[in-house]
Amino acid sequence: MSGPTAAMIVIGDEILSGRTREGNAHHLAGVMTEIGIRLTEIRVVADGRDAIVEAVNTLRSRVDYVFTSGGIGPTHDDITADAVAAAFGVLIGVREDARAILAAYYGTDDINEARLRMARIPDGADLIENPLSQAPGFRLGNVHVMAGVPDIFKVMVETVRPTLKGGAPVRSWAFRVPVPEGDVAVALAQVAEAHPAVSLGSYPFYRGGLGTTLIARSSDEAALDAAAQAVRDMLVGMGVGNVEETPPD
Amino acid sequence: MSGPTAAMIVIGDEILSGRTREGNAHHLAGVMTEIGIRLTEIRVVADGRDAIVEAVNTLRSRVDYVFTSGGIGPTHDDITADAVAAAFGVLIGVREDARAILAAYYGTDDINEARLRMARIPDGADLIENPLSQAPGFRLGNVHVMAGVPDIFKVMVETVRPTLKGGAPVRSWAFRVPVPEGDVAVALAQVAEAHPAVSLGSYPFYRGGLGTTLIARSSDEAALDAAAQAVRDMLVGMGVGNVEETPPD
Repeated sequence: MSGPTAAMIVIGDEILSGRTREGNAHHLAGVMTEIGIRLTEIRVVADGRDAIVEAVNTLRSRVDYVFTSGGIGPTHDDITADAVAAAFGVLIGVREDARAILAAYYGTDDINEARLRMARIPDGADLIENPLSQAPGFRLGNVHVMAGVPDIFKVMVETVRPTLKGGAPVRSWAFRVPVPEGDVAVALAQVAEAHPAVSLGSYPFYRGGLGTTLIARSSDEAALDAAAQAVRDMLVGMGVGNVEETPPD
Repeated sequence: MSGPTAAMIVIGDEILSGRTREGNAHHLAGVMTEIGIRLTEIRVVADGRDAIVEAVNTLRSRVDYVFTSGGIGPTHDDITADAVAAAFGVLIGVREDARAILAAYYGTDDINEARLRMARIPDGADLIENPLSQAPGFRLGNVHVMAGVPDIFKVMVETVRPTLKGGAPVRSWAFRVPVPEGDVAVALAQVAEAHPAVSLGSYPFYRGGLGTTLIARSSDEAALDAAAQAVRDMLVGMGVGNVEETPPD
Protein backbone atom coordinates (compact mmCIF):
# COMPACT_ATOMS: atom_id res chain seq x y z
CA MET A 1 0.00 0.00 0.00
CA SER A 2 1.21 3.49 -0.76
CA GLY A 3 -0.20 6.89 0.20
CA PRO A 4 0.56 9.10 3.18
CA THR A 5 1.56 7.49 6.49
CA ALA A 6 1.49 8.39 10.17
CA ALA A 7 2.75 7.12 13.52
CA MET A 8 1.62 7.86 17.06
CA ILE A 9 3.67 8.17 20.24
CA VAL A 10 1.77 7.95 23.52
CA ILE A 11 3.78 9.30 26.44
CA GLY A 12 2.80 8.21 29.90
CA ASP A 13 3.82 6.01 32.79
CA GLU A 14 0.17 5.73 33.78
CA ILE A 15 -0.59 3.73 30.64
CA LEU A 16 2.41 1.42 31.14
CA SER A 17 1.47 0.80 34.78
CA GLY A 18 -2.03 -0.29 33.74
CA ARG A 19 -3.73 2.46 35.72
CA THR A 20 -5.16 4.20 32.68
CA ARG A 21 -6.49 2.56 29.56
CA GLU A 22 -5.26 4.48 26.55
CA GLY A 23 -7.85 5.79 24.11
CA ASN A 24 -6.16 8.57 22.13
CA ALA A 25 -4.39 6.18 19.75
CA HIS A 26 -7.70 4.49 18.94
CA HIS A 27 -9.29 7.88 18.27
CA LEU A 28 -6.42 8.99 16.03
CA ALA A 29 -6.51 5.66 14.16
CA GLY A 30 -10.14 6.24 13.22
CA VAL A 31 -9.48 9.80 12.05
CA MET A 32 -6.48 8.72 9.95
CA THR A 33 -8.55 6.03 8.25
CA GLU A 34 -11.28 8.61 7.50
CA ILE A 35 -8.86 10.92 5.74
CA GLY A 36 -6.85 8.28 3.93
CA ILE A 37 -3.65 8.34 5.98
CA ARG A 38 -2.23 4.95 6.94
CA LEU A 39 -1.23 4.67 10.61
CA THR A 40 1.74 2.31 10.56
CA GLU A 41 2.82 2.18 14.20
CA ILE A 42 1.82 3.19 17.71
CA ARG A 43 4.37 3.35 20.52
CA VAL A 44 3.64 3.86 24.19
CA VAL A 45 6.75 5.07 26.01
CA ALA A 46 7.56 6.17 29.55
CA ASP A 47 7.83 9.77 30.79
CA GLY A 48 11.57 9.65 30.12
CA ARG A 49 13.60 11.96 27.92
CA ASP A 50 15.66 9.24 26.19
CA ALA A 51 12.60 7.12 25.41
CA ILE A 52 10.76 10.08 23.87
CA VAL A 53 13.77 11.29 21.86
CA GLU A 54 14.35 7.82 20.42
CA ALA A 55 10.72 7.31 19.42
CA VAL A 56 10.42 10.78 17.87
CA ASN A 57 13.63 10.49 15.87
CA THR A 58 12.95 6.96 14.66
CA LEU A 59 9.41 7.63 13.57
CA ARG A 60 9.65 11.17 12.14
CA SER A 61 12.04 9.97 9.45
CA ARG A 62 9.87 6.97 8.64
CA VAL A 63 6.37 8.41 8.17
CA ASP A 64 4.75 11.57 6.84
CA TYR A 65 3.11 12.61 10.11
CA VAL A 66 3.94 11.90 13.74
CA PHE A 67 1.49 12.63 16.55
CA THR A 68 2.31 12.60 20.25
CA SER A 69 -0.07 12.54 23.19
CA GLY A 70 0.75 13.44 26.77
CA GLY A 71 3.39 15.16 28.88
CA ILE A 72 2.76 18.80 27.97
CA GLY A 73 1.25 19.95 31.27
CA PRO A 74 2.72 22.11 34.03
CA THR A 75 4.20 19.47 36.36
CA HIS A 76 7.76 18.21 36.83
CA ASP A 77 6.99 14.96 34.96
CA ASP A 78 5.78 16.83 31.84
CA ILE A 79 8.91 16.69 29.72
CA THR A 80 7.59 16.12 26.20
CA ALA A 81 8.31 19.62 24.86
CA ASP A 82 11.91 19.52 26.10
CA ALA A 83 12.40 16.01 24.74
CA VAL A 84 11.02 16.95 21.30
CA ALA A 85 13.30 20.01 21.20
CA ALA A 86 16.22 17.72 22.07
CA ALA A 87 15.19 15.26 19.35
CA PHE A 88 15.32 18.06 16.76
CA GLY A 89 18.42 19.65 18.30
CA VAL A 90 16.74 23.03 18.73
CA LEU A 91 16.48 25.38 21.70
CA ILE A 92 13.36 25.75 23.80
CA GLY A 93 12.10 28.60 25.94
CA VAL A 94 8.99 30.46 27.05
CA ARG A 95 7.42 31.97 23.96
CA GLU A 96 5.56 35.26 24.18
CA ASP A 97 2.51 34.28 22.12
CA ALA A 98 2.02 31.10 24.18
CA ARG A 99 2.51 33.01 27.42
CA ALA A 100 -0.05 35.61 26.32
CA ILE A 101 -2.65 32.90 25.64
CA LEU A 102 -2.18 31.54 29.16
CA ALA A 103 -2.19 35.01 30.74
CA ALA A 104 -5.51 35.79 29.04
CA TYR A 105 -6.99 32.46 30.15
CA TYR A 106 -5.92 32.76 33.79
CA GLY A 107 -6.82 36.46 33.82
CA THR A 108 -3.47 37.57 35.17
CA ASP A 109 -0.09 38.42 33.77
CA ASP A 110 1.43 36.84 36.87
CA ILE A 111 1.42 33.20 35.81
CA ASN A 112 3.03 30.82 38.26
CA GLU A 113 6.29 29.09 37.45
CA ALA A 114 4.57 25.74 36.84
CA ARG A 115 2.03 27.13 34.35
CA LEU A 116 4.80 29.02 32.59
CA ARG A 117 6.21 25.58 31.67
CA MET A 118 3.21 25.21 29.34
CA ALA A 119 4.45 28.22 27.35
CA ARG A 120 7.82 26.56 26.68
CA ILE A 121 7.86 25.94 22.92
CA PRO A 122 10.78 24.67 20.83
CA ASP A 123 12.29 27.16 18.39
CA GLY A 124 10.69 27.01 14.96
CA ALA A 125 7.44 25.37 16.09
CA ASP A 126 3.91 26.48 15.23
CA LEU A 127 1.32 26.47 18.02
CA ILE A 128 -1.64 24.09 17.94
CA GLU A 129 -4.66 25.81 19.47
CA ASN A 130 -6.51 24.33 22.42
CA PRO A 131 -9.96 25.91 22.65
CA LEU A 132 -10.77 23.84 25.74
CA SER A 133 -8.11 24.80 28.28
CA GLN A 134 -5.91 27.11 26.17
CA ALA A 135 -2.46 25.59 26.91
CA PRO A 136 -1.29 25.01 23.34
CA GLY A 137 0.31 22.05 21.63
CA PHE A 138 2.76 22.61 18.82
CA ARG A 139 3.95 21.32 15.46
CA LEU A 140 7.68 21.05 14.81
CA GLY A 141 8.57 19.67 11.38
CA ASN A 142 6.20 16.75 10.87
CA VAL A 143 5.75 16.12 14.59
CA HIS A 144 2.47 17.22 16.20
CA VAL A 145 2.73 17.47 19.98
CA MET A 146 -0.66 17.27 21.67
CA ALA A 147 -2.26 16.86 25.08
CA GLY A 148 -2.93 13.54 26.77
CA VAL A 149 -6.31 14.46 28.28
CA PRO A 150 -8.70 12.77 25.83
CA ASP A 151 -11.12 15.69 25.34
CA ILE A 152 -8.24 18.06 24.69
CA PHE A 153 -6.43 15.57 22.43
CA LYS A 154 -9.58 15.31 20.33
CA VAL A 155 -10.01 19.06 19.86
CA MET A 156 -6.33 19.35 18.93
CA VAL A 157 -6.76 16.61 16.32
CA GLU A 158 -9.65 18.62 14.85
CA THR A 159 -7.46 21.76 14.86
CA VAL A 160 -4.73 19.92 12.98
CA ARG A 161 -6.93 17.86 10.62
CA PRO A 162 -7.34 20.53 7.87
CA THR A 163 -3.54 20.83 7.60
CA LEU A 164 -3.01 17.13 6.83
CA LYS A 165 -2.80 15.89 3.28
CA GLY A 166 -4.74 12.64 3.09
CA GLY A 167 -4.96 10.09 0.34
CA ALA A 168 -7.88 8.16 -1.08
CA PRO A 169 -9.81 6.98 1.98
CA VAL A 170 -9.59 3.28 2.71
CA ARG A 171 -13.06 1.79 2.94
CA SER A 172 -14.01 -1.61 4.30
CA TRP A 173 -16.65 -4.31 4.23
CA ALA A 174 -16.95 -6.56 7.28
CA PHE A 175 -18.52 -10.04 7.46
CA ARG A 176 -19.04 -11.52 10.91
CA VAL A 177 -19.50 -15.28 10.74
CA PRO A 178 -20.19 -17.87 13.45
CA VAL A 179 -17.42 -20.27 12.38
CA PRO A 180 -13.79 -20.51 13.45
CA GLU A 181 -11.07 -19.01 11.27
CA GLY A 182 -9.74 -22.46 10.40
CA ASP A 183 -12.93 -23.25 8.47
CA VAL A 184 -12.57 -20.29 6.13
CA ALA A 185 -8.81 -19.77 6.00
CA VAL A 186 -7.99 -21.77 2.87
CA ALA A 187 -10.81 -20.29 0.81
CA LEU A 188 -10.08 -16.79 2.10
CA ALA A 189 -6.44 -17.05 1.06
CA GLN A 190 -7.67 -17.85 -2.48
CA VAL A 191 -9.95 -14.80 -2.48
CA ALA A 192 -7.03 -12.67 -1.23
CA GLU A 193 -4.79 -13.93 -4.02
CA ALA A 194 -7.44 -13.22 -6.67
CA HIS A 195 -7.96 -9.63 -5.42
CA PRO A 196 -4.50 -8.10 -4.97
CA ALA A 197 -5.78 -4.50 -4.74
CA VAL A 198 -7.77 -5.41 -1.63
CA SER A 199 -6.40 -6.25 1.82
CA LEU A 200 -8.30 -9.23 3.26
CA GLY A 201 -8.00 -9.73 6.99
CA SER A 202 -9.46 -12.28 9.35
CA TYR A 203 -10.04 -11.50 13.02
CA PRO A 204 -11.15 -14.25 15.36
CA PHE A 205 -13.44 -13.56 18.29
CA TYR A 206 -14.48 -15.75 21.16
CA ARG A 207 -17.98 -15.59 22.58
CA GLY A 208 -18.80 -18.99 24.01
CA GLY A 209 -17.33 -20.41 20.80
CA LEU A 210 -14.99 -19.15 18.15
CA GLY A 211 -16.21 -16.88 15.37
CA THR A 212 -14.49 -14.79 12.76
CA THR A 213 -14.78 -11.31 11.35
CA LEU A 214 -13.58 -11.09 7.75
CA ILE A 215 -12.58 -7.64 6.60
CA ALA A 216 -11.94 -6.45 3.06
CA ARG A 217 -10.19 -3.06 2.84
CA SER A 218 -9.21 -0.95 -0.13
CA SER A 219 -9.06 2.59 -1.41
CA ASP A 220 -10.21 1.28 -4.82
CA GLU A 221 -14.02 1.13 -4.64
CA ALA A 222 -14.62 -1.13 -7.62
CA ALA A 223 -11.98 -3.58 -6.46
CA LEU A 224 -13.47 -3.51 -2.96
CA ASP A 225 -16.97 -4.28 -4.22
CA ALA A 226 -15.66 -7.18 -6.31
CA ALA A 227 -13.76 -8.64 -3.36
CA ALA A 228 -16.79 -8.26 -1.07
CA GLN A 229 -18.88 -10.17 -3.60
CA ALA A 230 -16.21 -12.87 -3.78
CA VAL A 231 -16.33 -13.24 0.02
CA ARG A 232 -20.13 -13.51 -0.12
CA ASP A 233 -19.91 -16.17 -2.85
CA MET A 234 -17.27 -18.03 -0.82
CA LEU A 235 -19.50 -18.09 2.28
CA VAL A 236 -22.55 -19.24 0.30
CA GLY A 237 -20.44 -21.93 -1.38
CA MET A 238 -19.32 -23.20 2.03
CA GLY A 239 -22.85 -23.17 3.41
CA VAL A 240 -22.00 -20.61 6.14
CA GLY A 241 -25.16 -18.91 7.34
CA ASN A 242 -25.96 -16.16 9.85
CA VAL A 243 -23.50 -13.75 8.24
CA GLU A 244 -23.65 -10.20 9.62
CA GLU A 245 -22.49 -7.76 6.94
CA THR A 246 -21.32 -4.25 7.72
CA PRO A 247 -20.95 -2.01 4.65
CA PRO A 248 -18.47 0.88 4.40
CA ASP A 249 -19.49 3.96 6.43
CA MET B 1 14.03 2.39 38.94
CA SER B 2 15.55 -1.05 38.71
CA GLY B 3 14.01 -4.53 38.81
CA PRO B 4 12.78 -6.76 36.01
CA THR B 5 11.37 -5.16 32.86
CA ALA B 6 9.00 -6.12 30.05
CA ALA B 7 7.77 -4.86 26.69
CA MET B 8 4.68 -5.68 24.68
CA ILE B 9 4.23 -5.95 20.91
CA VAL B 10 0.67 -5.86 19.61
CA ILE B 11 0.40 -7.17 16.06
CA GLY B 12 -2.60 -6.16 14.04
CA ASP B 13 -3.76 -3.99 11.19
CA GLU B 14 -7.21 -3.90 12.75
CA ILE B 15 -5.87 -1.86 15.69
CA LEU B 16 -3.99 0.55 13.42
CA SER B 17 -7.05 1.09 11.22
CA GLY B 18 -9.11 2.03 14.28
CA ARG B 19 -11.59 -0.81 13.79
CA THR B 20 -10.66 -2.56 17.03
CA ARG B 21 -9.76 -0.92 20.31
CA GLU B 22 -6.82 -2.74 21.81
CA GLY B 23 -7.19 -4.12 25.34
CA ASN B 24 -4.51 -6.79 25.73
CA ALA B 25 -1.73 -4.30 26.47
CA HIS B 26 -3.83 -2.75 29.23
CA HIS B 27 -4.48 -6.18 30.72
CA LEU B 28 -0.80 -7.14 30.58
CA ALA B 29 0.19 -3.79 32.13
CA GLY B 30 -1.97 -4.49 35.17
CA VAL B 31 -0.56 -8.01 35.61
CA MET B 32 3.03 -6.78 35.29
CA THR B 33 2.42 -4.15 37.97
CA GLU B 34 0.91 -6.81 40.26
CA ILE B 35 3.99 -9.00 40.04
CA GLY B 36 6.60 -6.26 40.18
CA ILE B 37 7.74 -6.22 36.55
CA ARG B 38 8.06 -2.81 34.96
CA LEU B 39 6.47 -2.53 31.50
CA THR B 40 8.70 -0.04 29.68
CA GLU B 41 7.21 0.07 26.19
CA ILE B 42 4.22 -1.02 24.11
CA ARG B 43 4.41 -1.11 20.32
CA VAL B 44 1.51 -1.70 17.95
CA VAL B 45 2.79 -2.82 14.54
CA ALA B 46 1.20 -3.95 11.30
CA ASP B 47 0.75 -7.56 10.12
CA GLY B 48 4.05 -7.28 8.26
CA ARG B 49 7.11 -9.45 8.63
CA ASP B 50 9.68 -6.65 8.68
CA ALA B 51 7.74 -4.65 11.24
CA ILE B 52 7.44 -7.65 13.57
CA VAL B 53 11.08 -8.70 13.18
CA GLU B 54 12.31 -5.20 13.95
CA ALA B 55 10.14 -4.81 17.05
CA VAL B 56 11.05 -8.27 18.40
CA ASN B 57 14.77 -7.81 17.90
CA THR B 58 14.88 -4.29 19.30
CA LEU B 59 12.88 -5.10 22.40
CA ARG B 60 14.13 -8.58 23.30
CA SER B 61 17.65 -7.25 23.85
CA ARG B 62 16.37 -4.35 25.90
CA VAL B 63 14.03 -5.91 28.48
CA ASP B 64 13.77 -9.13 30.48
CA TYR B 65 10.45 -10.27 29.00
CA VAL B 66 8.74 -9.58 25.69
CA PHE B 67 5.09 -10.46 25.08
CA THR B 68 3.36 -10.44 21.71
CA SER B 69 -0.35 -10.52 20.98
CA GLY B 70 -1.97 -11.45 17.68
CA GLY B 71 -1.22 -13.09 14.36
CA ILE B 72 -0.98 -16.75 15.40
CA GLY B 73 -4.20 -18.02 13.83
CA PRO B 74 -4.76 -20.14 10.73
CA THR B 75 -5.20 -17.47 8.04
CA HIS B 76 -2.83 -16.09 5.42
CA ASP B 77 -2.35 -12.85 7.37
CA ASP B 78 -1.20 -14.71 10.52
CA ILE B 79 2.56 -14.40 10.17
CA THR B 80 3.76 -13.84 13.72
CA ALA B 81 5.31 -17.30 14.25
CA ASP B 82 7.28 -17.08 11.00
CA ALA B 83 8.39 -13.52 11.78
CA VAL B 84 9.56 -14.46 15.29
CA ALA B 85 11.50 -17.43 13.87
CA ALA B 86 13.10 -15.03 11.37
CA ALA B 87 13.95 -12.58 14.16
CA PHE B 88 15.82 -15.32 16.02
CA GLY B 89 17.29 -16.81 12.83
CA VAL B 90 15.85 -20.29 13.54
CA LEU B 91 13.85 -22.67 11.38
CA ILE B 92 10.11 -23.20 11.75
CA GLY B 93 7.90 -26.14 10.86
CA VAL B 94 4.87 -28.13 11.98
CA ARG B 95 5.70 -29.68 15.34
CA GLU B 96 4.27 -33.02 16.31
CA ASP B 97 3.20 -32.12 19.86
CA ALA B 98 1.38 -29.01 18.65
CA ARG B 99 -0.22 -30.98 15.79
CA ALA B 100 -1.41 -33.63 18.25
CA ILE B 101 -3.07 -31.02 20.46
CA LEU B 102 -5.02 -29.66 17.47
CA ALA B 103 -5.91 -33.18 16.22
CA ALA B 104 -7.35 -34.06 19.64
CA TYR B 105 -9.32 -30.81 19.77
CA TYR B 106 -10.80 -31.12 16.28
CA GLY B 107 -11.38 -34.87 16.78
CA THR B 108 -9.61 -35.86 13.58
CA ASP B 109 -6.09 -36.54 12.50
CA ASP B 110 -6.96 -34.97 9.16
CA ILE B 111 -6.43 -31.31 10.05
CA ASN B 112 -6.85 -28.89 7.18
CA GLU B 113 -3.90 -27.03 5.73
CA ALA B 114 -4.96 -23.76 7.34
CA ARG B 115 -5.27 -25.20 10.86
CA LEU B 116 -1.94 -26.93 10.43
CA ARG B 117 -0.41 -23.44 10.28
CA MET B 118 -1.25 -23.15 13.98
CA ALA B 119 1.12 -26.08 14.68
CA ARG B 120 4.06 -24.26 13.06
CA ILE B 121 6.45 -23.58 15.94
CA PRO B 122 9.99 -22.17 15.70
CA ASP B 123 12.81 -24.57 16.57
CA GLY B 124 13.77 -24.43 20.23
CA ALA B 125 10.50 -22.95 21.47
CA ASP B 126 8.35 -24.18 24.38
CA LEU B 127 4.59 -24.30 23.88
CA ILE B 128 2.25 -22.05 25.87
CA GLU B 129 -0.96 -23.91 26.60
CA ASN B 130 -4.32 -22.55 25.54
CA PRO B 131 -7.07 -24.28 27.54
CA LEU B 132 -9.73 -22.28 25.71
CA SER B 133 -9.27 -23.17 22.06
CA GLN B 134 -6.15 -25.34 22.22
CA ALA B 135 -4.03 -23.72 19.47
CA PRO B 136 -0.88 -23.04 21.49
CA GLY B 137 1.32 -20.00 21.83
CA PHE B 138 5.04 -20.40 22.40
CA ARG B 139 8.03 -19.00 24.24
CA LEU B 140 11.30 -18.59 22.36
CA GLY B 141 14.12 -17.14 24.44
CA ASN B 142 12.51 -14.31 26.40
CA VAL B 143 9.75 -13.73 23.83
CA HIS B 144 6.25 -14.98 24.67
CA VAL B 145 4.05 -15.29 21.60
CA MET B 146 0.35 -15.25 22.47
CA ALA B 147 -3.08 -14.96 20.87
CA GLY B 148 -4.81 -11.70 20.03
CA VAL B 149 -8.33 -12.78 21.02
CA PRO B 150 -8.68 -11.14 24.45
CA ASP B 151 -10.08 -14.15 26.34
CA ILE B 152 -7.34 -16.40 24.97
CA PHE B 153 -4.64 -13.80 25.57
CA LYS B 154 -5.73 -13.64 29.22
CA VAL B 155 -5.59 -17.39 29.81
CA MET B 156 -2.16 -17.51 28.16
CA VAL B 157 -0.94 -14.75 30.49
CA GLU B 158 -2.13 -16.86 33.43
CA THR B 159 -0.33 -19.90 31.98
CA VAL B 160 2.89 -17.92 31.71
CA ARG B 161 2.63 -15.94 34.96
CA PRO B 162 4.19 -18.55 37.29
CA THR B 163 7.30 -18.72 35.07
CA LEU B 164 8.03 -14.98 35.37
CA LYS B 165 10.40 -13.68 37.98
CA GLY B 166 8.90 -10.53 39.43
CA GLY B 167 10.40 -7.94 41.70
CA ALA B 168 8.99 -6.11 44.68
CA PRO B 169 5.51 -5.06 43.55
CA VAL B 170 5.06 -1.38 42.90
CA ARG B 171 2.19 -0.03 44.95
CA SER B 172 0.46 3.30 44.56
CA TRP B 173 -1.64 5.89 46.35
CA ALA B 174 -3.89 8.09 44.24
CA PHE B 175 -5.35 11.48 45.13
CA ARG B 176 -8.02 12.90 42.87
CA VAL B 177 -8.42 16.64 43.35
CA PRO B 178 -10.79 19.16 41.75
CA VAL B 179 -8.09 21.68 40.85
CA PRO B 180 -6.00 22.07 37.70
CA GLU B 181 -2.45 20.72 37.63
CA GLY B 182 -1.01 24.23 37.49
CA ASP B 183 -2.27 24.91 41.02
CA VAL B 184 -0.37 22.01 42.56
CA ALA B 185 2.62 21.63 40.26
CA VAL B 186 5.17 23.72 42.17
CA ALA B 187 4.38 22.14 45.54
CA LEU B 188 4.26 18.66 44.01
CA ALA B 189 7.72 19.08 42.50
CA GLN B 190 8.99 19.89 46.02
CA VAL B 191 7.37 16.73 47.44
CA ALA B 192 8.90 14.72 44.57
CA GLU B 193 12.34 16.11 45.29
CA ALA B 194 12.04 15.31 49.01
CA HIS B 195 10.98 11.68 48.31
CA PRO B 196 13.43 10.30 45.74
CA ALA B 197 12.42 6.65 46.34
CA VAL B 198 8.87 7.44 45.21
CA SER B 199 7.70 8.30 41.71
CA LEU B 200 5.21 11.17 41.85
CA GLY B 201 3.03 11.63 38.79
CA SER B 202 0.30 14.07 37.97
CA TYR B 203 -2.46 13.24 35.50
CA PRO B 204 -4.93 15.90 34.44
CA PHE B 205 -8.51 15.07 33.64
CA TYR B 206 -11.24 17.17 32.14
CA ARG B 207 -14.82 16.87 33.25
CA GLY B 208 -16.51 20.21 32.74
CA GLY B 209 -13.40 21.72 34.32
CA LEU B 210 -9.85 20.61 34.85
CA GLY B 211 -8.94 18.31 37.72
CA THR B 212 -5.84 16.33 38.58
CA THR B 213 -5.02 12.85 39.80
CA LEU B 214 -1.80 12.74 41.79
CA ILE B 215 -0.15 9.34 41.98
CA ALA B 216 2.66 8.24 44.27
CA ARG B 217 4.27 4.91 43.29
CA SER B 218 7.01 2.89 44.92
CA SER B 219 8.08 -0.62 45.74
CA ASP B 220 9.31 0.70 49.12
CA GLU B 221 6.27 0.69 51.39
CA ALA B 222 7.61 2.95 54.12
CA ALA B 223 8.80 5.50 51.58
CA LEU B 224 5.42 5.32 49.83
CA ASP B 225 3.50 5.97 53.05
CA ALA B 226 5.73 8.93 53.87
CA ALA B 227 5.26 10.44 50.42
CA ALA B 228 1.48 9.89 50.58
CA GLN B 229 1.41 11.75 53.89
CA ALA B 230 3.47 14.55 52.37
CA VAL B 231 0.94 14.87 49.53
CA ARG B 232 -1.91 14.99 52.07
CA ASP B 233 -0.12 17.70 54.06
CA MET B 234 0.54 19.63 50.86
CA LEU B 235 -3.14 19.57 49.89
CA VAL B 236 -4.28 20.62 53.38
CA GLY B 237 -1.69 23.40 53.38
CA MET B 238 -3.05 24.66 50.05
CA GLY B 239 -6.65 24.48 51.23
CA VAL B 240 -7.63 21.94 48.57
CA GLY B 241 -10.78 20.07 49.64
CA ASN B 242 -12.86 17.24 48.14
CA VAL B 243 -9.84 14.98 47.79
CA GLU B 244 -10.68 11.40 46.76
CA GLU B 245 -8.00 9.06 48.06
CA THR B 246 -7.45 5.58 46.63
CA PRO B 247 -5.13 3.39 48.71
CA PRO B 248 -2.91 0.63 47.27
CA ASP B 249 -4.85 -2.54 46.31
